[in-house]
Amino acid sequence: MKIYQARIAPNPRRVRIFLAEKDIAMEYVEVDIQKGEQYSPEFKQKNVLGLLPVLELDDGSHLSESIAICRYFEEVQPEPLLFGRDAKEKAIVEMWIRRCDFYFMFPTGMCFQNTSDYFKGLKRQVPEWGELCREKSAKFFNLLNNHFEHNDYLAGDYFSIADISAFCTVDFAKVIQQRIQPEHTHLQRWYDAVAARPSSKA
Amino acid sequence: MKIYQARIAPNPRRVRIFLAEKDIAMEYVEVDIQKGEQYSPEFKQKNVLGLLPVLELDDGSHLSESIAICRYFEEVQPEPLLFGRDAKEKAIVEMWIRRCDFYFMFPTGMCFQNTSDYFKGLKRQVPEWGELCREKSAKFFNLLNNHFEHNDYLAGDYFSIADISAFCTVDFAKVIQQRIQPEHTHLQRWYDAVAARPSSKA
Repeated sequence: MKIYQARIAPNPRRVRIFLAEKDIAMEYVEVDIQKGEQYSPEFKQKNVLGLLPVLELDDGSHLSESIAICRYFEEVQPEPLLFGRDAKEKAIVEMWIRRCDFYFMFPTGMCFQNTSDYFKGLKRQVPEWGELCREKSAKFFNLLNNHFEHNDYLAGDYFSIADISAFCTVDFAKVIQQRIQPEHTHLQRWYDAVAARPSSKA
Repeated sequence: MKIYQARIAPNPRRVRIFLAEKDIAMEYVEVDIQKGEQYSPEFKQKNVLGLLPVLELDDGSHLSESIAICRYFEEVQPEPLLFGRDAKEKAIVEMWIRRCDFYFMFPTGMCFQNTSDYFKGLKRQVPEWGELCREKSAKFFNLLNNHFEHNDYLAGDYFSIADISAFCTVDFAKVIQQRIQPEHTHLQRWYDAVAARPSSKA
């Protein structure tokens, strides 16, 4: 079993932290995204969309999408449960995974891809859209800060995969010059708590 | 227990079809999205993001995000299982839920919001981005057609929530004038099979 990844990218990091929380050892194979190796016909056999990370199972089949890879390991090694412990908590975790993806990771990534020199010539850029996404990403920092005024973690007092997702996105947002602001005292408290977990270094 | 929804919108439809598959009766409360009722301070108590659908539980708490609502019901009434039956299948279903959201529903929705007269004055539009999203949505029609050449459903021979998501998005894509093309024979076969299920009328 192994995971194809690019160490620098935020999505593989979500999986590494998740596996560290479960104390699951893994072989990682680095894919050179600057050379575009993920778009090669060979790699697209593993993930038709040419995206990372990709989990290769021992039967030779492949799974992609970070949260899908994490869910596989939640099923094969439940402890500690990171997707919720009962029906309502599982739904709340799912809600926050999706909020973080749709209204935080996605606008942050779209801002980066549409405004950064890094993608000039690699992607068709629409800077006006990128700037609008920068505002959306900034708004989510505020939403998180408000939420953490009354909650230790995204799902109340329960640390979950949703916190891992949000934590990686806060760090990723530095590429679009978004950072936790001095007035985000609750968000900062949560961030420091997640950063203090050994898994955050994975 | 009740669900706040807008009958016309694609996301609540995913939940209605899911509940029909499980034969779960539900009270639906219509929210007037043309009047912007979902953005009222009262409604934002139910979902801070002002989005539909929202499930109100009997304890008065609220869950949002369609797939999170569906996951709640998968847990409280497992049969028939629609999120997968074992670890690997659950991960494959999750992978396809996310592919359909990120690379199909999202570009389709962003094209609609950035190019349609319906949103003029309601949202800041970036038509160039909308057109780029139209191409992404069209690409996913091709991806689906290729997939269904060798698979009955998204997760192989197993009908799942991912098929419900993709089916609702194919129908939704009509708002950006995207339709199944005559050459999409495999996609058409899958579409007809899902449309023939009684749940599709929910």
